[in-house]
Amino acid sequence: MEILVRYGEIGLKSDIIRRNLEEILRKNIIKLLKKYDIDADVYILHRRLLVNVNTKDKEDEAIDLLRKVAGIVSYSPGYSCPLDIDEIINTAIQVMKKKMKDLGKEKIKFAVKTKRSNKQFPFNSVEVNKKVGEAIVEKFNLDVDLDNPDITLGIEILRDRAFIFTDKFEGIGGLPVGSQGRVLCLISDGIDSPVAAFLMAKRGCRLVLLHLKITEEALNKVRKIVEVLSDYDTELEFVVYDYKKDLEEIYKKLKEIKKESYTCIFCKKKMLKIAEKYAKYMECDAIVTGDCLGQVASQTLKNLRVISQGINYLILRPLIAFDKNETTELAKKIGTYDIAIEKEIKCPYLPKFPKTLSKIEEVEKIMKKANIS
Amino acid sequence: MEILVRYGEIGLKSDIIRRNLEEILRKNIIKLLKKYDIDADVYILHRRLLVNVNTKDKEDEAIDLLRKVAGIVSYSPGYSCPLDIDEIINTAIQVMKKKMKDLGKEKIKFAVKTKRSNKQFPFNSVEVNKKVGEAIVEKFNLDVDLDNPDITLGIEILRDRAFIFTDKFEGIGGLPVGSQGRVLCLISDGIDSPVAAFLMAKRGCRLVLLHLKITEEALNKVRKIVEVLSDYDTELEFVVYDYKKDLEEIYKKLKEIKKESYTCIFCKKKMLKIAEKYAKYMECDAIVTGDCLGQVASQTLKNLRVISQGINYLILRPLIAFDKNETTELAKKIGTYDIAIEKEIKCPYLPKFPKTLSKIEEVEKIMKKANIS
Repeated sequence: MEILVRYGEIGLKSDIIRRNLEEILRKNIIKLLKKYDIDADVYILHRRLLVNVNTKDKEDEAIDLLRKVAGIVSYSPGYSCPLDIDEIINTAIQVMKKKMKDLGKEKIKFAVKTKRSNKQFPFNSVEVNKKVGEAIVEKFNLDVDLDNPDITLGIEILRDRAFIFTDKFEGIGGLPVGSQGRVLCLISDGIDSPVAAFLMAKRGCRLVLLHLKITEEALNKVRKIVEVLSDYDTELEFVVYDYKKDLEEIYKKLKEIKKESYTCIFCKKKMLKIAEKYAKYMECDAIVTGDCLGQVASQTLKNLRVISQGINYLILRPLIAFDKNETTELAKKIGTYDIAIEKEIKCPYLPKFPKTLSKIEEVEKIMKKANIS
Repeated sequence: MEILVRYGEIGLKSDIIRRNLEEILRKNIIKLLKKYDIDADVYILHRRLLVNVNTKDKEDEAIDLLRKVAGIVSYSPGYSCPLDIDEIINTAIQVMKKKMKDLGKEKIKFAVKTKRSNKQFPFNSVEVNKKVGEAIVEKFNLDVDLDNPDITLGIEILRDRAFIFTDKFEGIGGLPVGSQGRVLCLISDGIDSPVAAFLMAKRGCRLVLLHLKITEEALNKVRKIVEVLSDYDTELEFVVYDYKKDLEEIYKKLKEIKKESYTCIFCKKKMLKIAEKYAKYMECDAIVTGDCLGQVASQTLKNLRVISQGINYLILRPLIAFDKNETTELAKKIGTYDIAIEKEIKCPYLPKFPKTLSKIEEVEKIMKKANIS
């Protein structure tokens, strides 16, 4: 079996950039399959990639894994053959036979849909549909039904080969990981930040995940989340910083001047400060957070502004305009949701009434008074 | 006719915040309908809103417009009645009669689905389904089909009234505009920036749209886009700044030192500088851009970083991790796509080979050399 891989935005790029992105995508597919001990050859065809899975007992697993490779818009398991109408017909009959066997039905309705990217091929799409359709009708005595078929036999006429398939799976889209630089993602055990990191990987960024550790319990959840994310970026880096002492100090200082309601704000400012250092050190071009506007009381514009103040680094917030249910849906889709909700770990320093509408001047005053850097 | 409005995230908030958001949503519905000369009363019910359209010849238009109100997750035209089982049955028969007439069919299959938020009501959901279903069978001699009905009659048992309907329309979700502060959105005649502005309105922000004018043609497109967006935020403000002279100066200065390839970078830096001034002046807490990673060659992480450098303001980029087709789909849905693509206006200062991977140090050097502030 082979798998035909289709990309989306890569195809909109100039030739040079496209070839570069195709090559990164090719390598990323090999790397992810290799992680699961699946050996595969991947060829770049005419605006498609062809995956040849050599580990025969893991073909289904390989199909599943392609769902996690950024840059892939859709993909189809099937068989390729030389650009010859008889070869195409023969391969189509084999593919059809296999699919009928899988379905366990003998009396099915089918349709043939040909896409001819290679206009040099002597038969056009309608002619290929007709020739292949007729051969299948003759061979299996089936009915054609273009509107509501049980099986749609797809044929792609590419530059050097044809490809025949019956299924089309959806990929995550985006751009190949590693094509768009490195980002430092702040990652917690919650629902949002893993989704934010995933979205940046989807757009082609290499991930450096930084967890600011407060409790061992949360770290354990984060480890599992990182394991899931490492399928999307097989070369991600994971860094843990022991943050408890910093947060304790902030809390203590604020408590002394009776300003505990500002704990979350100063905590987040400190987090960004630490992230900034790591981003520089690990050569990342941006800091990524799971911030979302208005989701919880403290995620106000005013607080976001106060928190970012003084950070001289690009901060990206891919979830900023997401609804809670949109983030949750994505978390379920990528596989981090169940881990995030398995046990809610409350921050031990969460004030009773966190400040929701902080002001820059006020925060600067408190910073001085409490001697927080 | 009345319209029952359902919200999503608003329901997750504490009582005080929820009531405040409900009231903002109520006023926003009235304002949008009023803009189209539709008079309506809007009542806050038990975690629902009830819209009573008084302008009888504009009921369909009112139904259409609710699709544009941030905070609404779904809504249903129908009729309310007192919390009495006989009243519910009678109203259900009227609603059913109307729907059958609209469908133009007499022999249809139907189902009843009751949702009882008010647990005080003496009949539970199953009992209401049964009583109403039996009455309809008797009255119209129809068949019940729970799996594949032609009409699903919905009944919501609320605290003070019941509501009966057959259709459910999807809203845009999010939070009511005006509940999350003000943002300054840089807006151009392209596909992306109107979508970015829409997304911030969807999350409850009041919009100040700033267009940096280079050509009259582009401004005319932007005016039409602003008109579309003003349905999502009926109180948005629109500001035009004559930017041509600034850009000309940047181009001239860069040309003098043969660094025209940096035109886009310095242009965008200047745009953010101007946006920063306006954001302060117009009391916005953030600047919003349509930036998207890797969509065009100049939208690299490194360029985004260089461009943001020196801007001491919260910058939000809601599209940062969007695929091109995701942004395009949204643009079509909100109604700005057709305007954006009607005529492509190329920037007259676009260099042949725009710099894609700029460095902060290099840009600072050029800034000094070319005397650009």
